[in-house]
Amino acid sequence: MSISSHPQITVLKNGSVTSARGFRAAGIAAGIKKTKGKDMALITSDVAAEVAAVFTVNQVQAAPVKVSREHARTGKVRAVVANSGNANACTGVAGLRDAKEMTEVAAKELGCKAKEVLVCSTGRIGIPLPMPVIRRGIKEAAAALDPSGGVVAAEAMMTSDTFAKHYAVRIELDGVPVTLGGIAKGAGMIHPDMATMLAFVTTDARIDRATLRACVDECVEQSFNSISVDGDTSTNDTVIVLANGAAMTNNQPLTRKHAQFPLFLQALRQVMRHLSRLIVEDGEGITKVVEIVVKGAATRKDAKLAALAVGKSTLVKCSWCGEDPNWGRLMDALGYSKAKIREEMVEIFYNGLQAVVNGQRSKASEARIRKIVAKRSFIITIHLHLGAGEYTFLTTDLTEQYVTLNKGE
Amino acid sequence: MSISSHPQITVLKNGSVTSARGFRAAGIAAGIKKTKGKDMALITSDVAAEVAAVFTVNQVQAAPVKVSREHARTGKVRAVVANSGNANACTGVAGLRDAKEMTEVAAKELGCKAKEVLVCSTGRIGIPLPMPVIRRGIKEAAAALDPSGGVVAAEAMMTSDTFAKHYAVRIELDGVPVTLGGIAKGAGMIHPDMATMLAFVTTDARIDRATLRACVDECVEQSFNSISVDGDTSTNDTVIVLANGAAMTNNQPLTRKHAQFPLFLQALRQVMRHLSRLIVEDGEGITKVVEIVVKGAATRKDAKLAALAVGKSTLVKCSWCGEDPNWGRLMDALGYSKAKIREEMVEIFYNGLQAVVNGQRSKASEARIRKIVAKRSFIITIHLHLGAGEYTFLTTDLTEQYVTLNKGE
Repeated sequence: MSISSHPQITVLKNGSVTSARGFRAAGIAAGIKKTKGKDMALITSDVAAEVAAVFTVNQVQAAPVKVSREHARTGKVRAVVANSGNANACTGVAGLRDAKEMTEVAAKELGCKAKEVLVCSTGRIGIPLPMPVIRRGIKEAAAALDPSGGVVAAEAMMTSDTFAKHYAVRIELDGVPVTLGGIAKGAGMIHPDMATMLAFVTTDARIDRATLRACVDECVEQSFNSISVDGDTSTNDTVIVLANGAAMTNNQPLTRKHAQFPLFLQALRQVMRHLSRLIVEDGEGITKVVEIVVKGAATRKDAKLAALAVGKSTLVKCSWCGEDPNWGRLMDALGYSKAKIREEMVEIFYNGLQAVVNGQRSKASEARIRKIVAKRSFIITIHLHLGAGEYTFLTTDLTEQYVTLNKGE
Repeated sequence: MSISSHPQITVLKNGSVTSARGFRAAGIAAGIKKTKGKDMALITSDVAAEVAAVFTVNQVQAAPVKVSREHARTGKVRAVVANSGNANACTGVAGLRDAKEMTEVAAKELGCKAKEVLVCSTGRIGIPLPMPVIRRGIKEAAAALDPSGGVVAAEAMMTSDTFAKHYAVRIELDGVPVTLGGIAKGAGMIHPDMATMLAFVTTDARIDRATLRACVDECVEQSFNSISVDGDTSTNDTVIVLANGAAMTNNQPLTRKHAQFPLFLQALRQVMRHLSRLIVEDGEGITKVVEIVVKGAATRKDAKLAALAVGKSTLVKCSWCGEDPNWGRLMDALGYSKAKIREEMVEIFYNGLQAVVNGQRSKASEARIRKIVAKRSFIITIHLHLGAGEYTFLTTDLTEQYVTLNKGE
């Protein structure tokens, strides 16, 4: 999850979902949130774009997830409409009708088909959408569409986020500049397999649908599916990637055989990883961002199991909050993970300093390890010495503030 | 987990591990804990007792777990020696030698074989045992053994517990009074499959080993393995049941065919459930005890998966702390549990008041549900309407105080 930019990838200043050509966006205050903050975002492509979307694997799926999944399956996409302040989840047949109407209202404003519009909602579960407010909001957002509206759209998706999350990069493909950029929201319910997290990424690359979908699956696994704040996955999580080809009108669509395909993939991964990291850094009430690197597991699956057990243990996360290394709690979590472990083989390092050797404390002074755990961000490397399985996972501490924030709505 | 006493089961006042005949116990301050509190417990049976023990399934197992498992496998048992203040876990070969020596020192004091002594440790992981202090402590405890020492022994096992946990009941079998009683410690790392939890139960019933072990397995599953405070399971968890036959010297050993066998099983279950409930009620920093009853799951396994997902979700637990029903978070947790769920079939009740019908909010006012969630203890019943699988699980809220308590040691 450490993000090192590739020399052929240029990071754009203030980049977002509208950095790529041919995309516009808006974010407005429709009146869904009691706080009167921005709560309605609209992102459009001037031409129909190829789409790849990844949705929550939660069995309880919000109405907008059901509608967007259907719309994204076959056709191209012109727009994404998203509201915060209400999740439109556990709302039954009425919720499904409301989600569909959101795509219809947006389609009418934009002069496209409802099937070309995807819809997302985030907020509290179980409350019907205030449709008169929603309808007005979509119209207002459509009127406010702007080729530099990406950051404002990011603001309109925020729930308990404390800052808007946006990022973009540029690469050169076949002699033309191609841009990839995105916006995201996170904060609570962040965990692998999609949390209460929305991320929209756009690119003006030309790429065929199958290739785009394969790229997105691969990058999502290494970004949004490798982070955790609180171990909960939500009913509404969605990653949508749109590719409208606006920068490559005279070029062949990208395929895996293209010489510069690895660069495109790397750029997409960089955008997604950066947005993921922003989500973790803005985790509710957190004071630490901790990267867990598991090496030497019997299999990659075991490495993931081990990393997740450590990265979501409330006891481990509490000890980080107290800046207490307490590696015994890590050993304990490794032991109850379903990964194969041989206690006497385990090594644990904090920013490279070895704390555990052969499953027991090393000679490193606790004071030195404590200094590392006192940092805002550090890396814990766990070597199991059982095979070649590796997995990297980004997580946070658990604080009193997290509890306070999540006691109420 | 609701414990209704059977009419033929009498609860003893101030009952404990020494309520049954022929058992003695002691608890003393050896000097392992920095606080100078009691930290060494010894429980003995005047005659060698049948033993059934259940240990943590964590792959990282403390040295005393390894030693006790070996000692409990074949022979009978005369004593259990237990220290708090140090877990003797992740301590390698030296730790194993220390645990063995603890049984040897106790055996010498008691005039029995080291193999007839079980050993338990609880406290921080990864620190070598202070053996001079331990040796002195065991001798001092042996000198202090008392037929009414059970409660003091319970005090000596406490770590972050705020009260000593002890309980005993009496039944009549074949015309003789038979007693079952126990002590336990809990507080943190409480979760199914044994947490940082020790429980010792004694009975003066005469029962053969195979029958005792089957009874204990069944009762542990319905008591200590159905509770959670923080979702972590530890390296040291142990339940030990000793049956010395002292009350039934002229009777046949109990078997499943005995007419009153169900009464004995019920009494054992009642003791274990009561001790389990005490552990949850004393969970670190908690303000609520919540019983999750899942009904109508496709299988019992599914019911357990669903109950555990809800009962360990940090978001769900935080909302209880804030006295916010927020059943949407329960739906979300059900959705990501691996149990089969059909969203539109789910019903959720708070103390019998229906909050969710067909996966959506019911007509019950949120104020009424909120009043129930404000109680110190309440029952959430979740009906999945997919089969006959049932599971009951006892859990707690997650509070700022829990985090504060677990930031340090």
